[in-house]
Amino acid sequence: MRFADVRARTAALCWPLNIEDHSVQPMVDASPPKWHLAHTTWFFETFLLRPFGANYTRFHPAFEYLFNSYYEGVGDRHPRPRRGILSRPTLDEVYAYRAHVDVRMAALLASDDADLRARIQLGLHHEQQHQELIITDIKANLGCNPLRPAYLPAATEPSGNAPAMVFVEFGGGLVETGARANDTFCFDNELPRHKAWLDDFALANRLVTNGEYAEFIAAGGYDDPAFWLADGWAWARDNGVRAPMYWRQEGGTWVEYRLSGEQPLRTEAPVTHVSYFEADAFARWAHARLPTEIEWEHAAAQAGAPGNLPDETFHPRPANGRERMGQLFGDCWQWTASGYGPYPGFRPLPGALGEYNGKFMSGQQVLRGGSCATPPNHTRATYRNFFYPKDRWQFTGIRLARTVAGG
Amino acid sequence: MRFADVRARTAALCWPLNIEDHSVQPMVDASPPKWHLAHTTWFFETFLLRPFGANYTRFHPAFEYLFNSYYEGVGDRHPRPRRGILSRPTLDEVYAYRAHVDVRMAALLASDDADLRARIQLGLHHEQQHQELIITDIKANLGCNPLRPAYLPAATEPSGNAPAMVFVEFGGGLVETGARANDTFCFDNELPRHKAWLDDFALANRLVTNGEYAEFIAAGGYDDPAFWLADGWAWARDNGVRAPMYWRQEGGTWVEYRLSGEQPLRTEAPVTHVSYFEADAFARWAHARLPTEIEWEHAAAQAGAPGNLPDETFHPRPANGRERMGQLFGDCWQWTASGYGPYPGFRPLPGALGEYNGKFMSGQQVLRGGSCATPPNHTRATYRNFFYPKDRWQFTGIRLARTVAGG
Amino acid sequence: MRFADVRARTAALCWPLNIEDHSVQPMVDASPPKWHLAHTTWFFETFLLRPFGANYTRFHPAFEYLFNSYYEGVGDRHPRPRRGILSRPTLDEVYAYRAHVDVRMAALLASDDADLRARIQLGLHHEQQHQELIITDIKANLGCNPLRPAYLPAATEPSGNAPAMVFVEFGGGLVETGARANDTFCFDNELPRHKAWLDDFALANRLVTNGEYAEFIAAGGYDDPAFWLADGWAWARDNGVRAPMYWRQEGGTWVEYRLSGEQPLRTEAPVTHVSYFEADAFARWAHARLPTEIEWEHAAAQAGAPGNLPDETFHPRPANGRERMGQLFGDCWQWTASGYGPYPGFRPLPGALGEYNGKFMSGQQVLRGGSCATPPNHTRATYRNFFYPKDRWQFTGIRLARTVAGG
Amino acid sequence: MRFADVRARTAALCWPLNIEDHSVQPMVDASPPKWHLAHTTWFFETFLLRPFGANYTRFHPAFEYLFNSYYEGVGDRHPRPRRGILSRPTLDEVYAYRAHVDVRMAALLASDDADLRARIQLGLHHEQQHQELIITDIKANLGCNPLRPAYLPAATEPSGNAPAMVFVEFGGGLVETGARANDTFCFDNELPRHKAWLDDFALANRLVTNGEYAEFIAAGGYDDPAFWLADGWAWARDNGVRAPMYWRQEGGTWVEYRLSGEQPLRTEAPVTHVSYFEADAFARWAHARLPTEIEWEHAAAQAGAPGNLPDETFHPRPANGRERMGQLFGDCWQWTASGYGPYPGFRPLPGALGEYNGKFMSGQQVLRGGSCATPPNHTRATYRNFFYPKDRWQFTGIRLARTVAGG
Repeated sequence: MRFADVRARTAALCWPLNIEDHSVQPMVDASPPKWHLAHTTWFFETFLLRPFGANYTRFHPAFEYLFNSYYEGVGDRHPRPRRGILSRPTLDEVYAYRAHVDVRMAALLASDDADLRARIQLGLHHEQQHQELIITDIKANLGCNPLRPAYLPAATEPSGNAPAMVFVEFGGGLVETGARANDTFCFDNELPRHKAWLDDFALANRLVTNGEYAEFIAAGGYDDPAFWLADGWAWARDNGVRAPMYWRQEGGTWVEYRLSGEQPLRTEAPVTHVSYFEADAFARWAHARLPTEIEWEHAAAQAGAPGNLPDETFHPRPANGRERMGQLFGDCWQWTASGYGPYPGFRPLPGALGEYNGKFMSGQQVLRGGSCATPPNHTRATYRNFFYPKDRWQFTGIRLARTVAGG
Repeated sequence: MRFADVRARTAALCWPLNIEDHSVQPMVDASPPKWHLAHTTWFFETFLLRPFGANYTRFHPAFEYLFNSYYEGVGDRHPRPRRGILSRPTLDEVYAYRAHVDVRMAALLASDDADLRARIQLGLHHEQQHQELIITDIKANLGCNPLRPAYLPAATEPSGNAPAMVFVEFGGGLVETGARANDTFCFDNELPRHKAWLDDFALANRLVTNGEYAEFIAAGGYDDPAFWLADGWAWARDNGVRAPMYWRQEGGTWVEYRLSGEQPLRTEAPVTHVSYFEADAFARWAHARLPTEIEWEHAAAQAGAPGNLPDETFHPRPANGRERMGQLFGDCWQWTASGYGPYPGFRPLPGALGEYNGKFMSGQQVLRGGSCATPPNHTRATYRNFFYPKDRWQFTGIRLARTVAGG
Repeated sequence: MRFADVRARTAALCWPLNIEDHSVQPMVDASPPKWHLAHTTWFFETFLLRPFGANYTRFHPAFEYLFNSYYEGVGDRHPRPRRGILSRPTLDEVYAYRAHVDVRMAALLASDDADLRARIQLGLHHEQQHQELIITDIKANLGCNPLRPAYLPAATEPSGNAPAMVFVEFGGGLVETGARANDTFCFDNELPRHKAWLDDFALANRLVTNGEYAEFIAAGGYDDPAFWLADGWAWARDNGVRAPMYWRQEGGTWVEYRLSGEQPLRTEAPVTHVSYFEADAFARWAHARLPTEIEWEHAAAQAGAPGNLPDETFHPRPANGRERMGQLFGDCWQWTASGYGPYPGFRPLPGALGEYNGKFMSGQQVLRGGSCATPPNHTRATYRNFFYPKDRWQFTGIRLARTVAGG
Repeated sequence: MRFADVRARTAALCWPLNIEDHSVQPMVDASPPKWHLAHTTWFFETFLLRPFGANYTRFHPAFEYLFNSYYEGVGDRHPRPRRGILSRPTLDEVYAYRAHVDVRMAALLASDDADLRARIQLGLHHEQQHQELIITDIKANLGCNPLRPAYLPAATEPSGNAPAMVFVEFGGGLVETGARANDTFCFDNELPRHKAWLDDFALANRLVTNGEYAEFIAAGGYDDPAFWLADGWAWARDNGVRAPMYWRQEGGTWVEYRLSGEQPLRTEAPVTHVSYFEADAFARWAHARLPTEIEWEHAAAQAGAPGNLPDETFHPRPANGRERMGQLFGDCWQWTASGYGPYPGFRPLPGALGEYNGKFMSGQQVLRGGSCATPPNHTRATYRNFFYPKDRWQFTGIRLARTVAGG
């Protein structure tokens, strides 16, 4: 993974945007693209150039404050809910900031110091995470706009029927789970590799489709508390939630906002933009459950085929039906029943970089897989994504699991 | 007042802005300039072109919803706190909207129908009000930005000392107040002209200065509840208010954000950006009170000289000391002790235009005069501006009054 | 008015209550009866016994903090929204506190020092105000309870039809308004007596009835923004307000909670428990307006007859039809169009007692008259009551006014 | 466990209370004792008498609504934050309700129907849980009262020094965890017994003491974000948290509210009333971690001695130092690092009783052990208590864990 390629791709994702689109924060969670462009640059400035760059001069003294996301160890920062009020620096100035940092990174890129190389690699994976956020955050902006403008030209998207849902059985036993250190890149929260016991279990061969989710709605799924976690029921009531984000009923049929604009719901494509609460309620209605993260990883480690690779439609596509276990990566992140916590023996990175993952280990759920917005070489079976149960502006979907009788 | 001139001035006020600046809503009260550019156009489309334009075709069907400010009689509207998330329509599209409407207004401008002419005149005064809001709202945007960018080039602003504060006495009696209908333009809330009784009173010859207000702060004005209205004390506590908006202490001295950037406080210039609560507390500390709106109007109707006319510094200037009653217009709006209510016999305009003024007659205070951001030909002695007691992002200032003993 | 009588009446009002009823704060505005019993005692302790009592020993050192309502000059205080969590002091202890203070007041009651006598008189009027609040606050408690228990035995309440609504005309001119100092007791906010100009006007001969208000509802009054102040429309939407407080629809007919329990709405009785917003909207719907406080006082000063005197049903009764101007006192407080502000030349009492009235002079509306819960000798034509436009847990009602053509 | 004994104990816990104390809800989480007395009765009425009682007549039709806690399957209910406004039913009426139900339960108690007996047993365990809540909720009431009244007479509490903290090692491996069905009573969330893998680990031999926690504070523990989870840091900032609940600094030393009144902090007693966030931050500061629930249960299943049994001081006591693993039960609930979720193969009870535990499986943490307020025969090694990370009005404490090197 080359520095120049990753940095260039971030900018390329913003090409379809107007200048105005770069500054909008449609909700607290979704940051403006301009902010992402600056923050990813701040990461290299803060963790590489300032400690290790020879005679490095900061681009602007206020940027340390403006573009710090959540690193308490670095210092104070501009309040997150106010990211959308920053008309200055302008987009041009932010691109100048990127150039300033990119040029000065050259010397460091040539280093063969192991710690430096590891930090650069972390910075690139960090930037890839923000590439995904740029896509989901601009979707939140344009999708909340009453004009529903498209980010992409309307594409001829592949049709096709999803295969029947089949539950694939996996034998349990004592397994190893988590990443192997020094093997290839991973985040600190994927370590250490450790033992775990699994009972026999089964996972659905594909993600739940829009059509199946629409049946849940039609059957009164949002009106019956028996399907819902208590916090989820309160969340849906308080926020008037009656369908996935971006769904809207028009004359009795569902339409869905996609990055190519609002269009009729495709029943065969995976349902996406559902909260953990909705995923869990659907599973209960379907007489199933959500997988644990260990089950998911165990299954994914055995599956040879990657599923649909993400492409530039930035929308999940119907399962192709050719694989025993499909859609593990590349369509929707898959909510798991596992709360996000430390693996046995977990150690965060030293210093402020230790805030990357470890301090979020309460109140969130693990998601596994990857999505149509995840950079292609960024997914792996051990990757632990995490969001709050109410979050649904990411491309989140549902894979069902079942306990195997007698397992 | 010509249509083309007013419309052109609105655009001219936005020339110093970057594209990004046009979309920001730094707080619920302060709308993005792009929104003002569109809403003032919407006013002519909604109240002139759609009812009276021959074969008028709307520029875009969604704009009725997007750019309605508060006219319930027109229909639903985009929520006010969400004006800052509209990256679309882009600024270019909004200027195209302005051109579309301007061209089609030509035929109506030639009409000599009295109702039409009155509506056009109302639309122009409406647009002038938004010209002032464009200035104050962009000040809120740039002034809240940690970078404190300037809207204007740093100007050599006139220095000079304010004259000593003198209380000018006015004899009371039975007076007439309010505008005369059909005399010249006025809003419905200035009518009808009516009788009122005034006791003898005195008004300060100029506005309270920054230096005087800084004394109030230094004397513990924000720490002693005895000076404050109960709601004001709670407001200051809850919001951590310790000084006027845009003041900041730096190494023991006050700096102030002006539209030409942050600079040392000028003690001789009028204090501005204070809430009614602060104005009232200052008056009590100074053993004075705020004038009633009738007192103010009675004094202003007698004063020949206009005071400092607004200029393109968009900041209040020290009183020139040449006039018996100075700074009536052109520096700061002046909080009055009068709650905003209907004059005896008040009748709102018919239809949705009746929502212009009348429906706001609760919970707000009247301000009189005009400010450095008010278009020059837009002020008059009978003008009733109104804001909530907590509001201070307008150019609001303080003129003291006193009751004359035995008056 | 004798000290012992007033103090005894406060306790008597609490006799019908269970111990549990004494501690409940059903909403922030409505304090527990136990708190009223203690706070009125605190008033005498703080403003009489501690400064003037010989060797006075406080009953309990924490009561200064616990039972201070809003006197910043006295010091910190228990937060208002937390009055309902004070199970201690118990009711018995509060009655012991009352006895402790009452006994020690005896010496001061015998004094003929003018200031002392004035303070005692103020303390008694203060306690009478809280007698009214005890009634309205216990109504809020019992009326919000799903069991809707009665405070009083179900009484045979007088029936009878309200007379037709007639608008009684009053000639305008230069009038005097406000109380005369040293005449009889009044609060500081009723002073000084001052001149005002009145145009000719007319007031309705009685209050608006439940039947008339129900017509307003049936005609869609709560659904048409054209009748409403902007703040009122937002208030009604945000709070789901569709009828006066304590009204409830049951099988297509209205029932109303009264202090004798829930019962069918009596169409001839005055509507009560309406906010200023509702009163104003009703008036606009009825092609009328609300009176100003000067108009109201001018009319009331001329009216010989008191109207229905309050009685122990604690509920407004139909107008008796015998008087030219009925129901001025004794049924419902009457919202006026006048914002609550200082009279010309207003001076608050010195010291902490100056916080009694003056510091509330923003954001509230004046009400005039008195209600079925006001102690009989507590009403007068110059009395200025004040509440926020949204408030409606008091016995608030509607008297219509009209401008006389050519007046 | 006999019905009469459990029911009698609930009432006995309320004997020290005044009538007023029974109605207070000092915060949303803490219900009034009167509500607990009624709700536990409602449980038997709803789940036993109404479905199974011969010709059972309800005590009052509104109680189904008033005293339903969270059973959506039973129907609507009085809003939780409003439990403190119910002065009616009075305490006498609630005791009459208890008697009404107790008498009618007699016939069912004699039944040998297995389902009936299981439901009765569940009802008794349910009531025991509420016995603990009565203690903690009345502590919240009295402890938040500025008067800090005692619930109990000041007792001579056992002094003594806590033993040195030692980490006791436990060998890992494949273990069985969870309750055995049909063995003895357990809740549905303790089932099924299932396999799990444990690495070697060590648990502290006793709970963290007040003295140790005070060191954490003195060392700046609340000021350094490096110790805190991100949500915890925000929680402490937003709520001004600087010490455990009920601690207060007085002249430089800590005092603590206990149920026997406010008194100097005892350094040797276990720290209690800390949130998960505080427990986790303390552990990080102490170079340790919190145990997982499986680790805790594995250790507790091996420990023969129960530790301090709860007694009528209702406060945790210093560890006695006689046991290898002390204070497992009886002093403080012990926060674990395990998010509360379903065991593999978990099945909730059928019908509305299935809402008892399962629907809370998101966003909460498991606590293990028991506390000084837990009824003596109510604790067991497999018991899974659960609260939100911010909750600290229960008797919650800290047991440290460590990973054994090479484990």
